Amino acid sequence: MEAVRERQAQLTKPPGSLGRLEDIAAFLAAWQGVPMPAIEQPFVLIFAGNHGVVGRGVSAYPASVTRAMVANFEAGGAAINQICARFGLGLKVVDLDLDEPTLDFTQEPAMDEAAAVAAFARGMAAIPPGTDLLCVGEMGIGNSTSAAAIYYALYGGDAGGWVGRGTGVDDLGLACKIDAVEAGVANHKDWLADPLEVLRRLGGREIAAIAGAIVAARLAHIPVLLDGYIACAAAAVLQAQAPGALDHCLAAHVSAEAAHRHVLERLDKQPLLDLGMRLGEGSGAALAASLVQAALACHTGMATFAEANVANKIES
Amino acid sequence: MEAVRERQAQLTKPPGSLGRLEDIAAFLAAWQGVPMPAIEQPFVLIFAGNHGVVGRGVSAYPASVTRAMVANFEAGGAAINQICARFGLGLKVVDLDLDEPTLDFTQEPAMDEAAAVAAFARGMAAIPPGTDLLCVGEMGIGNSTSAAAIYYALYGGDAGGWVGRGTGVDDLGLACKIDAVEAGVANHKDWLADPLEVLRRLGGREIAAIAGAIVAARLAHIPVLLDGYIACAAAAVLQAQAPGALDHCLAAHVSAEAAHRHVLERLDKQPLLDLGMRLGEGSGAALAASLVQAALACHTGMATFAEANVANKIES
Repeated sequence: MEAVRERQAQLTKPPGSLGRLEDIAAFLAAWQGVPMPAIEQPFVLIFAGNHGVVGRGVSAYPASVTRAMVANFEAGGAAINQICARFGLGLKVVDLDLDEPTLDFTQEPAMDEAAAVAAFARGMAAIPPGTDLLCVGEMGIGNSTSAAAIYYALYGGDAGGWVGRGTGVDDLGLACKIDAVEAGVANHKDWLADPLEVLRRLGGREIAAIAGAIVAARLAHIPVLLDGYIACAAAAVLQAQAPGALDHCLAAHVSAEAAHRHVLERLDKQPLLDLGMRLGEGSGAALAASLVQAALACHTGMATFAEANVANKIES
Repeated sequence: MEAVRERQAQLTKPPGSLGRLEDIAAFLAAWQGVPMPAIEQPFVLIFAGNHGVVGRGVSAYPASVTRAMVANFEAGGAAINQICARFGLGLKVVDLDLDEPTLDFTQEPAMDEAAAVAAFARGMAAIPPGTDLLCVGEMGIGNSTSAAAIYYALYGGDAGGWVGRGTGVDDLGLACKIDAVEAGVANHKDWLADPLEVLRRLGGREIAAIAGAIVAARLAHIPVLLDGYIACAAAAVLQAQAPGALDHCLAAHVSAEAAHRHVLERLDKQPLLDLGMRLGEGSGAALAASLVQAALACHTGMATFAEANVANKIES
């Protein structure tokens, strides 16, 4: 990072004038362990899972949409496909036992130990070799209810404050979501001091897989762009488990799902984008990847004052 | 725009979930006059000018840097070159009589009528044929003082509230800037009810040229991304002259120059990015162009619910 800061002071621009782009370059250098970091294989992973809690009327879409959207990702028809194509990002969808939704967490743990560990392991194993920037996203009808339950369990406060309209539920759906979140946390309250139990009891396979991918990225020194409200639930579990666990992560954007702003404050992450998006599927992370690419292009491609024969600042 | 909104409702995503990306697509469609807008020739114009007010100690860099940076743009060594290369944006630098700085506006009008009109006309003529998205930026040592004087003249208030550290002046330089802005506006006060006189008396050639380019883009129905604090001074003059003059413009970003946030409020524009940048040279606009490209890629490339065989929202 020191070498990066030294170079940045020599590039043909006033010191600090590229703002967060300069911080991003330093961050990438630190995690890649080189003064001139590169992004040659940026990659988006989408994890998909189904949720038993959907039976409680918490979503505006039927559960069948999860699988249909996985097919849409594979056929290239979703928003994430267009963004990846535009910015040259690789994309892989990992579907996690879509025929076996998690159990309804208002009644019992969403996953047994084996299922939670298996999903986490799928996430750990999913990163393609050579990936040098990882975007994590998700697809799963019902999973904003699961994410809200995780936040409520981890952070407390008022259940309604963590719940939003997700894909766009009406007032009745919103009330169902709040009820489900309250019931879930009440039902499991004796086990929620352990963040991994929060993940297993209230989470979903795709959320566990994202947590696994974030951990695997950390072990491989791969910087991560977190997507929105749901992907951050996985991140929140990891941070609660081990402070510093997200040091290799940037928050790509703040979602229109109102509670996401509070989540990012808890994670101590300042989002790169604030565009009112609330789609999931890694779309915010992939969009922010373009800013990371630009930050690196400036850092590695700009001329220094000496190279360009430009006078440096007048020292008074 | 209606056709765009109709298509957006059919794309495989919850309604509105792409947030401002959906607004951008509708905006582009309106200005291009087609339901499936395209960006095939996005272009960045940088206008460069020199400023007599530099003699008053208002900048951290010598005036010679303006020409040296123009050479750096032409050689491909500046930040804007890297961003343009990354996102496939065309780039042209228009230098405006760099050997003839404007006059010191604290003493006399920065430009006579002929000089102001000539600069405006250079801006109008600068847009390459076929351009379908225009980013306007600038380079000019001393021009943040000129921009501050324009804002103070147009909007009143406290001179110091419109002045910032620009490329990074120290406290003495900042005091010199405030003095210059106050003296300039006081000296020309009898003529400042006319926004074009504000531009001529307090502006610079590059600021007048940006105003010309924005007007020419409007006549050609080309959407514009405004860059930062200085480029917006040209926009502010146009808006003061004719409300609605900026309807074809988006604010690319909000600069670290603190007054820019207030300027954008006056212009009623919400910035796409907020990354603490304060470089000028069109860098914020070019970065935001990537978001516009992504917005269009989603709008034109996504599958509809019917095409992808995805169930649409449950209507309750």
